[in-house]
Amino acid sequence: MPITTQLPLLRSRSQASFRHANILLTASTTRFRSTLPLGQSPSLDPMTGEIVALPDIQPGRLVISKNQNPTPPPSSKTLVFGRTFTDHMLAIHWDAVNGWGQPNIKPYGPLQLDPSTTVLHYAQTLFEGMKAYRDDGGKVTLFRPDMNMKRMNNSAKRIALPTFHGDALLELIKELIRLDRHWIPQEPGHSLYIRPTLIGTQRFIGVAPPTEALLFVICSPVGPYYPNGFKPIALYGTTEYIRAAPGGTGAYKLGVNYAPGVLPQKQAAKAGYAQNLWLHGSEHYLTEVGTMNMFVVLRKDDGAHELVTPPLDGMILPGVTRDSVLTLAREHAAGVKRLPNLPEDLVVSERQISMNEIKEASKANRLVELFGAGTAAVISPVNRIGYLGEDLHIPTGKDGMGPISRPIWTELVGRQTGAIPSDWSVVVSE
Amino acid sequence: MPITTQLPLLRSRSQASFRHANILLTASTTRFRSTLPLGQSPSLDPMTGEIVALPDIQPGRLVISKNQNPTPPPSSKTLVFGRTFTDHMLAIHWDAVNGWGQPNIKPYGPLQLDPSTTVLHYAQTLFEGMKAYRDDGGKVTLFRPDMNMKRMNNSAKRIALPTFHGDALLELIKELIRLDRHWIPQEPGHSLYIRPTLIGTQRFIGVAPPTEALLFVICSPVGPYYPNGFKPIALYGTTEYIRAAPGGTGAYKLGVNYAPGVLPQKQAAKAGYAQNLWLHGSEHYLTEVGTMNMFVVLRKDDGAHELVTPPLDGMILPGVTRDSVLTLAREHAAGVKRLPNLPEDLVVSERQISMNEIKEASKANRLVELFGAGTAAVISPVNRIGYLGEDLHIPTGKDGMGPISRPIWTELVGRQTGAIPSDWSVVVSE
Repeated sequence: MPITTQLPLLRSRSQASFRHANILLTASTTRFRSTLPLGQSPSLDPMTGEIVALPDIQPGRLVISKNQNPTPPPSSKTLVFGRTFTDHMLAIHWDAVNGWGQPNIKPYGPLQLDPSTTVLHYAQTLFEGMKAYRDDGGKVTLFRPDMNMKRMNNSAKRIALPTFHGDALLELIKELIRLDRHWIPQEPGHSLYIRPTLIGTQRFIGVAPPTEALLFVICSPVGPYYPNGFKPIALYGTTEYIRAAPGGTGAYKLGVNYAPGVLPQKQAAKAGYAQNLWLHGSEHYLTEVGTMNMFVVLRKDDGAHELVTPPLDGMILPGVTRDSVLTLAREHAAGVKRLPNLPEDLVVSERQISMNEIKEASKANRLVELFGAGTAAVISPVNRIGYLGEDLHIPTGKDGMGPISRPIWTELVGRQTGAIPSDWSVVVSE
Repeated sequence: MPITTQLPLLRSRSQASFRHANILLTASTTRFRSTLPLGQSPSLDPMTGEIVALPDIQPGRLVISKNQNPTPPPSSKTLVFGRTFTDHMLAIHWDAVNGWGQPNIKPYGPLQLDPSTTVLHYAQTLFEGMKAYRDDGGKVTLFRPDMNMKRMNNSAKRIALPTFHGDALLELIKELIRLDRHWIPQEPGHSLYIRPTLIGTQRFIGVAPPTEALLFVICSPVGPYYPNGFKPIALYGTTEYIRAAPGGTGAYKLGVNYAPGVLPQKQAAKAGYAQNLWLHGSEHYLTEVGTMNMFVVLRKDDGAHELVTPPLDGMILPGVTRDSVLTLAREHAAGVKRLPNLPEDLVVSERQISMNEIKEASKANRLVELFGAGTAAVISPVNRIGYLGEDLHIPTGKDGMGPISRPIWTELVGRQTGAIPSDWSVVVSE
């Protein structure tokens, strides 16, 4: 396709986009336009005239088309995770010739996809999960959203989907949240779950790098994961199926990591276990719990507590909650910031740990606790592992939690909701 | 959900479906209705009244809504694989309460999918690839379609999507092909590529077994893979990425096996190789080639030819072309049906073969040929493998093929097109 004919087309399209009827430009549009130094048109190589950089996501081009039939948010008591969505969604198209197009915030509604669209055949999809919180005073915050933007770009690279300026997308997500902020439940433990998704959309049933893509963001109000206090769960130590393997995609938040886990999860549930404990290799190293990262606490020879989680070796999802737990525990252990009620003799290890080590620790009364960590549940204590026909019991406190997870959870939830001030909490709206 | 209120609803819905305007019932509808003994309504347990079996796909309920704006098929010379689709598509909805619904053949057109639809987030998708051929006399045939129906059901089980009566779907696919038969190019090497696809469609961003699904079938006219004779390809022996691992999904035709291969394919192409040669384990066992199964031919100590392909050990896709090559070679070796020009001293092995064995065979002048086998290319000869920084050259004949693949290809293509009569060729329309 000759570039000379493409560039004028591109420019006239982006001008035309501002002439649409039924469009409300927000006050913030001007602000974005002046502060974000993002490319407004493809950069050309001065020697060859070739396109060397396509337009990135440009918040300054945002067009908001308000939902003329907004629905009242449901009562917080009736919320079911992931079934109710707010009035608006964000959508940004990308194609290999024009780069990222005009961002649109528009009424939540169906996508029209040709039956040959690549995502429907070859699973070219990735996503993120984030939460926005609203406090008593009405202040809305996000928790470490920069981590999600970075991971989303890493995921995109892994399946040849387009990358983007994370801060630019974040500005647009904030705009969407501001518009639908009345959907954020204010009750403790409630939040707005935000789901940025990126899919390959070219109409082509060959297996190839996407030439078209769609980034969209939808939002769902959610209640607490444990409305009646912590309920420790039982895990099925899974030896028949894997979640990930070296050279695969376990370290990326891709759709492909999830569909294959549904059948093992059904089978675990049938056998009386809540989630799969994913193992790796002939040593049965513990990797993840269901869709969460995993932590174990062991009592060492000298009586100290060791908090263990598998290292980011290519199979483990770099969870935001995982990183937050590790950071809080390390700052505590180093004396940088002591957490109340957390034992001082804490050692933090990112290392492999096998089922055999877990069994031996259990026998020697050195297994202190085991828990999952993720955005949805935050901390999910475990009280039992079924493994090769035996059940291994894991201690939990009266409230369901253990001596290490409890104080970490308290600090973490405080920082997430903004109740404990920290730079992890990013203000969306005062 | 009380069953007593559901059943009347179900019945009235299926009755209502026949009252739609703009529907043409084909002559064949009656035939299906009387010959296929498929459940017409949910079966109830006589003791409990519980639903024990949901309605399967029922060809007798087919409704055809003809495309009122059909397009003329493009010239066979301009065909590009997977970009052009015929006038009609087949669509059948399923849900966990009502089972498989009314099959519809309708104009090819976009699907409306809610942004929360599970396939867009968690890759709940699987597909098949089949070809229909039209001979000089106008007879239309499919090649071993029962294999595709079986595999599609196996794929569905692996990701908890609904299974179905394979013969019933096949009847409906035949009906679709008959309606669009003028789209099948008649030129040698041309065919109609048929893409049955099954996606999870519930509007829910929790990871769970689908409660709703959509099975659709689209058709694309395709030209020969090698329009100007065989072109042997170079493979990149891939050690950085994997296609599959034990306990994973490599043995199923799922979308999740494809998106992760795009980046490795791009990197291989950049290094000058056409496809990835997927390896497994520290021994670097050869598994598959790009999206094809793989065969190697070695000369043994006694001079005999050994045709080797990896066994179906859970990582290898059970390809229809793979099975056909093996069957033809075995029948030849056993003297059941000798193929012209194929050496008589042929030994057929389903066994693991490592890169080291390939290298040693090459050094000893015992590597006869190496090829990929799949529905799209049928046989794809290989002339070079890049492996750990070295290039390994593989013999090919003047026409690009080797002494084993050439006679097998001739027989296979003859049977596929129906030129060589066999029970592998299934008549769609005389």
